Amino acid sequence: MPNICLTFSTSHPAEKIHQALTRLEGLKAWWTHDVHGHSGEGQILTFTFSNNGSFDMQVIRNNGNQVCWKCIRGPEDWLGTHIEFNIQETPAHNQLMFRHTGWAEENPFFHHCSTKWATFLLSLRDYVETGQGRPFPNDVKIEAIGM
Amino acid sequence: MPNICLTFSTSHPAEKIHQALTRLEGLKAWWTHDVHGHSGEGQILTFTFSNNGSFDMQVIRNNGNQVCWKCIRGPEDWLGTHIEFNIQETPAHNQLMFRHTGWAEENPFFHHCSTKWATFLLSLRDYVETGQGRPFPNDVKIEAIGM
Repeated sequence: MPNICLTFSTSHPAEKIHQALTRLEGLKAWWTHDVHGHSGEGQILTFTFSNNGSFDMQVIRNNGNQVCWKCIRGPEDWLGTHIEFNIQETPAHNQLMFRHTGWAEENPFFHHCSTKWATFLLSLRDYVETGQGRPFPNDVKIEAIGM
Repeated sequence: MPNICLTFSTSHPAEKIHQALTRLEGLKAWWTHDVHGHSGEGQILTFTFSNNGSFDMQVIRNNGNQVCWKCIRGPEDWLGTHIEFNIQETPAHNQLMFRHTGWAEENPFFHHCSTKWATFLLSLRDYVETGQGRPFPNDVKIEAIGM
């Protein structure tokens, strides 16, 4: 099955990345301003993008350097897919490995989401490094219709 | 085999995208400032990123809305892979579908290149829309070591 695979590295602390993935104020600072729920394992996080849709993510793993969500409500292409964040610490820097796995096919929405995830990961990186990300609705648009 | 799949759309003319993919001055404006060669089918384009490497791409297709290159010299992971640009014209906008196909595995370099391609496609989009891209060495860096 096709997977979206992305990465960035930063000299900033791994703990800051982890907080940005597990605290509501962190998630609101780089993905979408509208986040509700709880980030403990087994709990549900809800991400809303105004009229563009809403996702429920069940937290499958939250154990420090590994965070994994399973989409249990959202667009059909996302249902059952997993979103994995793996922070790899080295003496020189911290590498975030990102995977959105389990897509059924490499359709146009796969292309769209792959590109959008890249912009959101750089939003996450910027938030970790500067305190300022670009979450929805101030996200980097990649489509002529403003998505 | 894993593939990198990305996209953007723009209300600007498809011809501008095509020129940015086939003219040396276009390629220099969004991917790397150092481009040599010829973009006709069967010919070779050479892209150089200072000390970070150099690629030879054989032009497999250049027929208007489809441009395809095959990597015939470069990093081992890229050898034999194909890079495809497909411009889909609609009345409302033009969609660029991008694929870098034929990777052997989803290794860290696959993650790196997927993210870098996203930044370069947005550089291409910005060049098409504003005349100003972000080619190497002024490209968006995604790694702590400045790549």
